[in-house]
Amino acid sequence: MKLTILGSFSAYPSFKGFTTSQVLEHNGKSFLIDCGEGTQLQLRKNKIKFNSIEDIFISHLHGDHYFGLPGLILTFNLLGREKPLNIFGPKGIKEIITSLMKVGKTWTNYKLNFIELNSIKSQDILNKNNFIVSTIPLYHGIYTNGFLFRKKTTSHKLIVKKAIDLGIDKTQFSGIKLGKDGVTSKGEIIKNTKLVEPLSPDIIYAFCSDTLFNLKITEQISECDLLYHESTFLKKDENFAVKTFHSTAEQAAIIAKNSNVKKLILGHFSSRYNDLDLFLNEAKTVFENCELAIENKSFIF
Amino acid sequence: MKLTILGSFSAYPSFKGFTTSQVLEHNGKSFLIDCGEGTQLQLRKNKIKFNSIEDIFISHLHGDHYFGLPGLILTFNLLGREKPLNIFGPKGIKEIITSLMKVGKTWTNYKLNFIELNSIKSQDILNKNNFIVSTIPLYHGIYTNGFLFRKKTTSHKLIVKKAIDLGIDKTQFSGIKLGKDGVTSKGEIIKNTKLVEPLSPDIIYAFCSDTLFNLKITEQISECDLLYHESTFLKKDENFAVKTFHSTAEQAAIIAKNSNVKKLILGHFSSRYNDLDLFLNEAKTVFENCELAIENKSFIF
Repeated sequence: MKLTILGSFSAYPSFKGFTTSQVLEHNGKSFLIDCGEGTQLQLRKNKIKFNSIEDIFISHLHGDHYFGLPGLILTFNLLGREKPLNIFGPKGIKEIITSLMKVGKTWTNYKLNFIELNSIKSQDILNKNNFIVSTIPLYHGIYTNGFLFRKKTTSHKLIVKKAIDLGIDKTQFSGIKLGKDGVTSKGEIIKNTKLVEPLSPDIIYAFCSDTLFNLKITEQISECDLLYHESTFLKKDENFAVKTFHSTAEQAAIIAKNSNVKKLILGHFSSRYNDLDLFLNEAKTVFENCELAIENKSFIF
Repeated sequence: MKLTILGSFSAYPSFKGFTTSQVLEHNGKSFLIDCGEGTQLQLRKNKIKFNSIEDIFISHLHGDHYFGLPGLILTFNLLGREKPLNIFGPKGIKEIITSLMKVGKTWTNYKLNFIELNSIKSQDILNKNNFIVSTIPLYHGIYTNGFLFRKKTTSHKLIVKKAIDLGIDKTQFSGIKLGKDGVTSKGEIIKNTKLVEPLSPDIIYAFCSDTLFNLKITEQISECDLLYHESTFLKKDENFAVKTFHSTAEQAAIIAKNSNVKKLILGHFSSRYNDLDLFLNEAKTVFENCELAIENKSFIF
């Protein structure tokens, strides 16, 4: 999987960078996660094919997380999109988007499916192409979800040499990877488990923005391969974090450590800071494998 | 006055440029005219002080003319704006903006005044700081206005040498410019008209986007100093112009010629064209004093 950061600043776009938006690419498809103002420009800059996006996930209805969505929806239409678009977001998002279309007398020629969320418990909201996407309930003053993307490993790795040595024909290989037993040239049946390696674990990405420090989420994001956790403030400004339902870099690192994730990415930086390395340094005192969500940077995992 | 082009492409922002937005600066204040996605970034790039903007004029509710407005309103708030903001736009704009704020539970600490327009006849909508702003009814499929900005000349130019020769003290000069008579050192009263030049004409900017070719507007914009007229298409694609209620470069030039304006600026270019000079060449066959609305370019008049 490949995660590309399109924007990672909080509150408003500026010279420092765009607001929250990310793309998770997998097998030629893309999930778009949040969609701040200017996201369509960032998609172009990062050469993400518009038509690869079938599903958009919006964490919450603060402008810096979705003000690029109305324009993107209409641009898709102007460019002749035909395939449906699924938009997952808080209840209210459908009315917002449709009211913008209504006043503009502009409707899409492709089907727009809104999947509105209002549960305060985690839900599986998408299951396709071996992906399960679940909500991560967050605490941010208004209804907010993070998203957990789980890529299921369904195909076993074949022990090729062993199969050949046993005299199993190559035409059986794809079936064996999916769980079938093998048959040797002499007609002997070889149990599937003897021909394949154990299933490797699922690959998991957890996106958590925006939220007050909340250890409750650690159970759900436990052991994930990559965690993006917001860190709007530094520890010295924790009072602002509490007041605005945000987290500090240190708190993001505590979440990462307690969840035993493989890697942490910090983002959603307040524009008050000029040196982003301060976030990295603060987080690394708690959790070493940590990087900054720098615009146009990709993470492959 | 100084007009700066922030964006001038139609339909959607792309590598070619941002969508419609312009700033008209005058005596330290700014009028913002239309506000496509990314306008706040363009304002920063062009070093327009956010606080100089007191009035925003939205021509119509197609996204490429106002999808940058919600973000700009909230950015003003985050930056601590205190002074009121007036937003002039089609009926419906207040509900759109307030519904976005409602779902985001985000309200401005400064006063937002919406002046909603629904008249199909021209109206004076603002009269302050020696400016009168009037609507220019356009024809674009949905309710659309252009805007006429008239800077009234209220102060006469003093004939300084004559005043001094007559023995009029300098302390009287500002009063004489505003219409008072002068008094010589010997107590003789000199009529105002003998001390000043005639009032120079008002300075007028006409903004016309988007619209089907419509000669009706020529009366209202007659003799203006600067005319921005949309030219979404070239003449060879006039069928598209008609279908989408837009104009061609030639039609914009015909409007300019029939209105006897001093200068024409072409804009709102369709992204289908790679060579904008084709617009300029087409218009110049009809009206010579013509320029393209190139992003970040300013016109002083």
